[in-house]
This record gives sequence, C-alpha cells and structure tokens, in this order.
Amino acid sequence: MSITAQLDGVAVSTQANVYFDGRCVSHTVTFADGTRKSVGVILPAQLSFGTGAPEIMETVAGSCSVLLPGASEWQTFGPGEKFSVPGNARFEIRVEGEPYHYICHFG
Amino acid sequence: MSITAQLDGVAVSTQANVYFDGRCVSHTVTFADGTRKSVGVILPAQLSFGTGAPEIMETVAGSCSVLLPGASEWQTFGPGEKFSVPGNARFEIRVEGEPYHYICHFG
Repeated sequence: MSITAQLDGVAVSTQANVYFDGRCVSHTVTFADGTRKSVGVILPAQLSFGTGAPEIMETVAGSCSVLLPGASEWQTFGPGEKFSVPGNARFEIRVEGEPYHYICHFG
Repeated sequence: MSITAQLDGVAVSTQANVYFDGRCVSHTVTFADGTRKSVGVILPAQLSFGTGAPEIMETVAGSCSVLLPGASEWQTFGPGEKFSVPGNARFEIRVEGEPYHYICHFG
C-alpha cells in the first residue's frame, strides 16, 4: 500500500483540535479548492467518535482496530489502508502500543 | 498581539512528531523555499526540551511558563507572544490547565 507522506499546496491551521484530553490531536488542512482534511494522531486508547460529514480515514503509520457502525466484528487497519465511516454515525477505534497517525478526508 | 491563525502555501507531513508519550505532538510544515516550521500542541505537563537549531516559539493559543537556558526566573507567554531558545540548549516548559498551541520557527 502506498503511504501519503505529505499534503502539498495547503494551508494548515496553527491551532490544533484536541479531543479526549489529548488522546487525539489533529490539525486542519485546507486545499486551494477549499477542500478540508485533517492530519492527526491517536495515542493508545479506545475512543468513540461521532461523525458529522462522512469520513474516510487513511492510515499513515501505526495501526488501529475499528468497530464500524452496525458491524459486529472489529477490523484492523495498517499503513496505507483506509476505512470509511458514514455521516451522522458513531464508531469505536482502539489503538494499542504505538501512536496511530492518520489523514481524515471529509465528505 | 496578532495571532498567526494559519500557514499558507505549505506542505504538511502527515506523520506527526510525538514526544514525551504524546504530551507534545507536532506536524512538520515545509514552505516553498524549503523553510521548515512545526505546528504543535503541548498538553498540561512540565517538559525539558533540547534544541538542535535555534528556535523561536510563537504562541497560538493557551499559555506556558518557560525557564530559558541560564535564566533563574520563569517567564509566561500567551497568545501572540514569542520566545527564543538558542541552539544546542535545553529549556523547561510548563503548561497547566488548557493545551498550549504553538508554531516553532527554526534557525
């Protein structure tokens, strides 16, 4: 799987998004066409996230286990792998050992 | 003091720099001319950082107390304020309450 090592030609917000007492930290990135993504890290934890817009989570480094909405089994995702979450939904993500680095694509 | 809300026309590394078990998380930003900076967050903690190149730390949100190399008194920095650290030096930084958001300028 190919890894997206950097996002080019963007503006990055200098203030981070800090969730769950810092177990998840991200920075928002805006492309020239107005598209927004975020780059972030989840530290070892099990967290429950709600989505507004649909999201595609792309793994940059580390791995996570995910329980998607309506799923009964956890799935594991490693570097270069992606998973999709519908809008207005909730999913569980579990990170063990090393931090999980991701790009979040919206919409 | 004016706040730098975003950095424009940059490339952002998608893998974060994670220090001190995640008490400090940053992403590296590269400008078209090759200049590198980082945007990061320090969660409540007292941390000791070593510099390679000289650094200018610019506060985006939150505040911190800093003991600069050779100083005997802590100084406090809030949004829009900056402090400089020489290269190959060590400084102490203490964050209490809310996360401290910063831009680190090198060189």
